[in-house]
Amino acid sequence: MNEDRLAALEARLSRLEDERDIAQLIAAYGPLVDSGSAEEAADLWAPEGVYDVDAAYLDGHHQITEMVRSEAHQGLIHRGCAHLLGPPHVTVDGDEAIAVCHSLLLVRVESRYVVQRATANYWRLRRGHQGWKVQTRTSRLLDGGLESRALLAAVADLNRSADSAG
Amino acid sequence: MNEDRLAALEARLSRLEDERDIAQLIAAYGPLVDSGSAEEAADLWAPEGVYDVDAAYLDGHHQITEMVRSEAHQGLIHRGCAHLLGPPHVTVDGDEAIAVCHSLLLVRVESRYVVQRATANYWRLRRGHQGWKVQTRTSRLLDGGLESRALLAAVADLNRSADSAG
Amino acid sequence: MNEDRLAALEARLSRLEDERDIAQLIAAYGPLVDSGSAEEAADLWAPEGVYDVDAAYLDGHHQITEMVRSEAHQGLIHRGCAHLLGPPHVTVDGDEAIAVCHSLLLVRVESRYVVQRATANYWRLRRGHQGWKVQTRTSRLLDGGLESRALLAAVADLNRSADSAG
Repeated sequence: MNEDRLAALEARLSRLEDERDIAQLIAAYGPLVDSGSAEEAADLWAPEGVYDVDAAYLDGHHQITEMVRSEAHQGLIHRGCAHLLGPPHVTVDGDEAIAVCHSLLLVRVESRYVVQRATANYWRLRRGHQGWKVQTRTSRLLDGGLESRALLAAVADLNRSADSAG
Repeated sequence: MNEDRLAALEARLSRLEDERDIAQLIAAYGPLVDSGSAEEAADLWAPEGVYDVDAAYLDGHHQITEMVRSEAHQGLIHRGCAHLLGPPHVTVDGDEAIAVCHSLLLVRVESRYVVQRATANYWRLRRGHQGWKVQTRTSRLLDGGLESRALLAAVADLNRSADSAG
Repeated sequence: MNEDRLAALEARLSRLEDERDIAQLIAAYGPLVDSGSAEEAADLWAPEGVYDVDAAYLDGHHQITEMVRSEAHQGLIHRGCAHLLGPPHVTVDGDEAIAVCHSLLLVRVESRYVVQRATANYWRLRRGHQGWKVQTRTSRLLDGGLESRALLAAVADLNRSADSAG
């Protein structure tokens, strides 16, 4: 009896820890890229991970590191910028997970900040030897187009699945 | 002895799961309305739930669905918009809960985003057969008026109660 | 055997509760200062706590309370403002913790909101008789300078330590 209760507690606790790990990973992205921590930002991804964002398709750690070190990104940092990621909607399924959130890119212009980008983000994550890592992050500008809306609409399907599972 | 420890663990874990469920519900709102997922957005509320936001008083699933389908809301989506909800302050009391958070509505204007609304949100939630659902979400523009400030001031009372309970 | 499993569960659960308490504390800041709840905002800090923000160095509850009651802050409230804090990256180590997050200050201007400040925040917290309290919150405008970037770069070190500990 107690054996069953212990096992159930361990499973529920592990789920919460997984969700915490994933939220923590996503909360790290903004501070890492805004401080120019290129390798640490890339290390949020699996070695073969992909960051697919509008015009850029960054394939693997090296390309993500180069993005942070690029003239364009360094220009943002030195001007003053904030990559703000909203609280993610996280769905864990074994060693795989999906997270969905908004993000904003704010850039300093004179004594104010302009919101240059408001973006839909869809993260596929996988648990490996080093814990949770990003497999693909797909990000599309919220420009009224179908692509960004499709990324966010995933939450509707995920909630339905959770309802039928629960 | 172990029985007591198991029961205490189960109660503490359930509390964390309740808070997680409520944060997850609130994190779903933005993606659902920005993707036009009208029924799924309404389904965050209990059937008799209310969304009371400045000029509009939306009573029940049908009126919330109609809001998402309205010309005004569809216009925002097709122009490019983001409903960004901040991390909520959540207080659970049995099968009832209160959550308080800020929200922003950003709308695309030329190649930038303008913050059209910054809003105070006070959510009353209840646990039912289908898990946590919104009973009322009261939202008021942060325009310097008393109403929006009163919604946010609830956090002061909730923290005091938690202190005396803890 | 069960004794070990119970003790392990209790420790893991306590960690999650600590992280929850700290996220909840940070989520309370915006609602408290935007509603003018001066004493309750100050009470997030330990009595000897410090809020070190660009030009101001607020030392202890009294000075934090006075900041909220100041003409400058009351002017923001009555104009309409939102202190939005992003989801924090939280690292607990016994009775000490570090949290890192972005924050935005939005102020109403005509019928829109302007982002006056985008800020890097580094929180040192300690657990005492009254639970988790802020020891120091260091906040610097993201103006391209070294100080704000150094606050955010802490996440790189914290992730590395967590990797080697795990």
